[in-house]
Amino acid sequence: MEASTSRLAKSVLTNGHHASGVKPTTAAQLPRPNPALWTTKDHRIYGAPSPDLILGPDDCIVHVRINGICGSDLHFWKAGEIGTCIVDEDYILGHEAAGEVFMAGSNVTHLKPGDPVAIEPGQPCEECHHCSIGEYNLCPDVAFSGAPPFHGSIRRYHVHRAKYLHKLPPTMTFTEGALLEPLSVVLHAFERSPLRLGSPALICGAGPIGLIALAAAKASGAFPLVITDVDASRLEFAKQFVPECETFLVPIQGLPVEHATAIQKLFLGLGSVEPSIVYECTGVQSSVHTAAFACRRGGEVMVIGVGRAVMDGLPFMHLSLAEIDLKFINRYHHSWPFAIRLMQSGYVNLKPLVTHRFKLEEAVGALETAADKTKTSVKIHIWDD
Amino acid sequence: MEASTSRLAKSVLTNGHHASGVKPTTAAQLPRPNPALWTTKDHRIYGAPSPDLILGPDDCIVHVRINGICGSDLHFWKAGEIGTCIVDEDYILGHEAAGEVFMAGSNVTHLKPGDPVAIEPGQPCEECHHCSIGEYNLCPDVAFSGAPPFHGSIRRYHVHRAKYLHKLPPTMTFTEGALLEPLSVVLHAFERSPLRLGSPALICGAGPIGLIALAAAKASGAFPLVITDVDASRLEFAKQFVPECETFLVPIQGLPVEHATAIQKLFLGLGSVEPSIVYECTGVQSSVHTAAFACRRGGEVMVIGVGRAVMDGLPFMHLSLAEIDLKFINRYHHSWPFAIRLMQSGYVNLKPLVTHRFKLEEAVGALETAADKTKTSVKIHIWDD
Amino acid sequence: MEASTSRLAKSVLTNGHHASGVKPTTAAQLPRPNPALWTTKDHRIYGAPSPDLILGPDDCIVHVRINGICGSDLHFWKAGEIGTCIVDEDYILGHEAAGEVFMAGSNVTHLKPGDPVAIEPGQPCEECHHCSIGEYNLCPDVAFSGAPPFHGSIRRYHVHRAKYLHKLPPTMTFTEGALLEPLSVVLHAFERSPLRLGSPALICGAGPIGLIALAAAKASGAFPLVITDVDASRLEFAKQFVPECETFLVPIQGLPVEHATAIQKLFLGLGSVEPSIVYECTGVQSSVHTAAFACRRGGEVMVIGVGRAVMDGLPFMHLSLAEIDLKFINRYHHSWPFAIRLMQSGYVNLKPLVTHRFKLEEAVGALETAADKTKTSVKIHIWDD
Amino acid sequence: MEASTSRLAKSVLTNGHHASGVKPTTAAQLPRPNPALWTTKDHRIYGAPSPDLILGPDDCIVHVRINGICGSDLHFWKAGEIGTCIVDEDYILGHEAAGEVFMAGSNVTHLKPGDPVAIEPGQPCEECHHCSIGEYNLCPDVAFSGAPPFHGSIRRYHVHRAKYLHKLPPTMTFTEGALLEPLSVVLHAFERSPLRLGSPALICGAGPIGLIALAAAKASGAFPLVITDVDASRLEFAKQFVPECETFLVPIQGLPVEHATAIQKLFLGLGSVEPSIVYECTGVQSSVHTAAFACRRGGEVMVIGVGRAVMDGLPFMHLSLAEIDLKFINRYHHSWPFAIRLMQSGYVNLKPLVTHRFKLEEAVGALETAADKTKTSVKIHIWDD
Repeated sequence: MEASTSRLAKSVLTNGHHASGVKPTTAAQLPRPNPALWTTKDHRIYGAPSPDLILGPDDCIVHVRINGICGSDLHFWKAGEIGTCIVDEDYILGHEAAGEVFMAGSNVTHLKPGDPVAIEPGQPCEECHHCSIGEYNLCPDVAFSGAPPFHGSIRRYHVHRAKYLHKLPPTMTFTEGALLEPLSVVLHAFERSPLRLGSPALICGAGPIGLIALAAAKASGAFPLVITDVDASRLEFAKQFVPECETFLVPIQGLPVEHATAIQKLFLGLGSVEPSIVYECTGVQSSVHTAAFACRRGGEVMVIGVGRAVMDGLPFMHLSLAEIDLKFINRYHHSWPFAIRLMQSGYVNLKPLVTHRFKLEEAVGALETAADKTKTSVKIHIWDD
Repeated sequence: MEASTSRLAKSVLTNGHHASGVKPTTAAQLPRPNPALWTTKDHRIYGAPSPDLILGPDDCIVHVRINGICGSDLHFWKAGEIGTCIVDEDYILGHEAAGEVFMAGSNVTHLKPGDPVAIEPGQPCEECHHCSIGEYNLCPDVAFSGAPPFHGSIRRYHVHRAKYLHKLPPTMTFTEGALLEPLSVVLHAFERSPLRLGSPALICGAGPIGLIALAAAKASGAFPLVITDVDASRLEFAKQFVPECETFLVPIQGLPVEHATAIQKLFLGLGSVEPSIVYECTGVQSSVHTAAFACRRGGEVMVIGVGRAVMDGLPFMHLSLAEIDLKFINRYHHSWPFAIRLMQSGYVNLKPLVTHRFKLEEAVGALETAADKTKTSVKIHIWDD
Repeated sequence: MEASTSRLAKSVLTNGHHASGVKPTTAAQLPRPNPALWTTKDHRIYGAPSPDLILGPDDCIVHVRINGICGSDLHFWKAGEIGTCIVDEDYILGHEAAGEVFMAGSNVTHLKPGDPVAIEPGQPCEECHHCSIGEYNLCPDVAFSGAPPFHGSIRRYHVHRAKYLHKLPPTMTFTEGALLEPLSVVLHAFERSPLRLGSPALICGAGPIGLIALAAAKASGAFPLVITDVDASRLEFAKQFVPECETFLVPIQGLPVEHATAIQKLFLGLGSVEPSIVYECTGVQSSVHTAAFACRRGGEVMVIGVGRAVMDGLPFMHLSLAEIDLKFINRYHHSWPFAIRLMQSGYVNLKPLVTHRFKLEEAVGALETAADKTKTSVKIHIWDD
Repeated sequence: MEASTSRLAKSVLTNGHHASGVKPTTAAQLPRPNPALWTTKDHRIYGAPSPDLILGPDDCIVHVRINGICGSDLHFWKAGEIGTCIVDEDYILGHEAAGEVFMAGSNVTHLKPGDPVAIEPGQPCEECHHCSIGEYNLCPDVAFSGAPPFHGSIRRYHVHRAKYLHKLPPTMTFTEGALLEPLSVVLHAFERSPLRLGSPALICGAGPIGLIALAAAKASGAFPLVITDVDASRLEFAKQFVPECETFLVPIQGLPVEHATAIQKLFLGLGSVEPSIVYECTGVQSSVHTAAFACRRGGEVMVIGVGRAVMDGLPFMHLSLAEIDLKFINRYHHSWPFAIRLMQSGYVNLKPLVTHRFKLEEAVGALETAADKTKTSVKIHIWDD
């Protein structure tokens, strides 16, 4: 069993779904070992067994078949924190996962063992104001599995509240299922800043989120599509991934306003107008500034990327005079059914993003590859069978 | 020249763009005859020369290469009126047109002879409140060419305010150009009731507008897609047109609430939820009622179809208890650049809708075919070279 | 204790907040008798003791100090049903209540005995999609106390889920607290169809909801304000209640389009434009039609009033050509804190609406007075001390 | 006559409303002298006659009765530029004006000599995309009278396009008319970030715009209202101006996050929640940061204030994690009729803001007083009779 001081265990026991005195089922006996990928406050990663799992009546144990690696996994490993989430004791990484239900708690009715599911990592309190109005992504007490102190899904067996397990259609693979999490991030951004059919769109940054935003923009009927990056090989990948797009290589030299002017000219040269919506997918200061200058007057910059705590050099008066809004998102709410239907439709095909695959036992190598910029990975998946 | 009592001429002379005393250029000498398709208040159609054209300084004369026939053309012919537009003297039909600029007025700078253009038929006053806030589709003084008393475009040479001529990209055909008008209708409806990526969508009616709405729903990333009709052959056409869709044959017998229940079950059977947005493309009373019952609680029915002046049997308390909004559109504003980009993107391909083609000289036959229900046409185009 | 077949008891026991096996506290011993106002399926009303109350751990027992009478109370009594809510066994009326907490369940932390509270009657399931996205007013399994089969609040002691009891500020009276329910209805309508500061507003119907809508429109900064009714005395009351308003007496004779034209002229005569938002507070067919014609092109009619199941004569093509949306509401969600702050601010003062007051023991007389059109009551309150 | 190189004259002659060759009426003979308040590129102000006026057929000459002084007037004087508007030759200040029509151009139908009007200073091109969609405040070619190079209204006689002169109701004074311009700024911000009835509101900065925002927030039905400033005397003024408000004195020391925490506590202490909308009316860096931290999760900061071109220290990750949008405005569009109705209603009374009055001949003294921080003026008016 997990140490009694574990905040995950505490969360599971106190998340409002276990009335006091209701005894949780303990699943001490799993059929196979439960190896997991841990990180530490002194910036190491290692493989070691998962703690025992506590199956509450509203939970399921999932045999995780695919885990994707996200930039934030690397960030927790290397930097030890994101915002208020701090790695102050060893915890298990991973929050992009799909698998099969292994065991269902006594209250669970919509899932049964064997069901293929994707894991929505955030388990909100369901009691606060934000949960009450449906913005559960802003719940201050969310138990997000994969952000410290809540253990993530890079292990064979993972316990999760069943309500946040989404059953996959029979035609969907676990690989696709594990791509639903980053797709949900993008869909939440598109929900807050939707693209009108036939409108131009600019995506800043051709990393995994930028590429998914590019696919989502195409699936939204946006045209023309321009994606930017400082790395030519990423842009080549983008062009293969969504052939309808145009690419813009951001020069290392030069000012954001200059890059933005060139980007706007690119749109005009394509017979379009400037983009009224810019999806900023890097969180890098200069890229946000470029986005602000590249946006059409009266438009909006939707900042999906995360970055440093504080930003300098914001072109404040430009935003003011051009009436450009700077919008932000934090994760997602209610996006998963939309992500599932979108992926099921075939309008987006994210599988080409998976450039590397590792077995669960080689999870440490997977993270090392993800962190190695010479390896030019896009999305790395860790699989188990 | 047109008789001085012509309201079109009057409109052109008084639309606020000709300062008093400015002499309009008269284009009495066109290189070829200008045959036109006329209708009358006693419900006849006939071919006869167009009146002479008056080229104001802000106008262009367009050599019309393609004209599409719309249900409203048939309605003006057969019923003699739609709303406040009444056929009280002979006038020229047609409002779905594309062609080449033949001559440009002296103030026109963005177009020159030879440019391929699509004609946006509505020429608003540009002075009223609705024009001022950008809702020029609601301008009470719009000169809509093709609705009486304003002559339409089914003629070889047509004069039009240049601002409402949209230059076509080099890759776009006149056939596509003439499909931009009904696409604009649909895009305006989608602008007012946009589909979220990955959301289910229901389209009621598989006529030309319903089919374009279906294509637009797919291009918006909606899934699953269901389209209904009372005619099985139209649904077959729809399925070929957008293979991702499911079809629902509305029984002749039965109540709207029963049809709606069956439609909702179809969505649930597809692993989806009920549609939060229903595009009603028939304007037929029973279909609007079915749409109201088929919509998810808290959703909206976007009524694109037009119908009788008065509707009976509206399920008022159902709408109230389920908090379902009934929304309406009238034509479009600012939709054309979006329609052009969308068609240019290739995300929608409307060309298969054109089932019949007639030469300009055979325009009467084109209309007769459109009115002949045994001919099962979808969209009929009249061409000239 | 209530009979085991009571759906209220069943609801309380199964609303997801009592884990199985948790024993509810039974409050068999109340300090005073618990008289209640009952209605029957054969359209009688009578006073008789309330059933015993079951205090679940998440519930409170409230000593109800004020109950307002609503048109729907009369409707359940006289007609025996509204929509799918049918009086098929005797039940207790009332859903506009405020009082003091008498006893709090074991899980309740935000309330204690003696706290003044207003009762939000709808207790949603908190599990369905609509609850999950915050639209709990659309929850199909809501236990709405005061709509059959759920007992209402016209009794001395009433049990209710504590989450739906809103603590009143010290400065607010129980009379005001009992007016929060109809104010919440109006605020929900204003949330869905907000008035822009300095915009004209039309309110159709000067009954209690229309009067509250009038006060809310003024508090929203709308001007000019016009309210209509067929009854001159109601309009006099309105003018005293909100002196800034103008009144329009709807003639018994004449067509909706004629009344609407006169209403629009009234706005123009006041130096305004036509209203872009019309709040329809009667649900009467001709009034809805008048609202549709009186609305500015591109505007919306927010239907707050409820009426017959089916509506005939809807000016369908007018709505279509003028692009006027018909919107609806069903109760409210999350409106109560807004209603409390608004009332606390003093910007609205609804107390003058209470024209008659009866003791709890005279509740039958209160309802009879409310039903007696010769008594010209606006809002009748039943009090207890 | 103005020098032929004057951009104002050029603008008037080329604004699209004068067809080429139409001769403008010249009003060389005014009944009284036309003194004006000029500023220079070397930061001087002086009184001197206005250039002659050219009355185009769509223009009016207004006898200006009241001019308000705005912070931007001082900024043009002292700093010589705001954004891309640069004082590179002498020009006349002033853009908050009301007066009487003295002479109307030949095309003008809605105004006649003697009519009281307020001057909406921005005269947009009416041809560009932004004008076409109704966002004429974003027109890149707007001729904004009072921003260089376009002469402003601090003179006796001012020529202006009649369409942007708003007739005042008979009950409104010129003093009120001259307050419509800053009210329009605030209304545009409230249009983009409206307050829900009964919601809390925070206003940062108790200068003229902050005070008007406070009045507008009250008129919108917001409660509680908190206004902040670093100057206690301004807060005293605010409390007298809108007695319902609470004030928060921002300490000179301390971090934005600390001030924000104290502000949030103030709201909670008032029985409210944190404000979901914050109107930032200073443009000062630390105040914008405080606004960002004080806003409720999921809310928005509406930046009305203008400031330095570039902002450092933006709490980027806080905005991201709390999903708080940063929105901006630039002036207004279509706000004036709303401002007139709002002022006419009496819901806001801005007259107490006028703390000092000067005759037109003493306009230099008026500006010097406005610039003198020891004088604690709020709004200074310059009058003429």
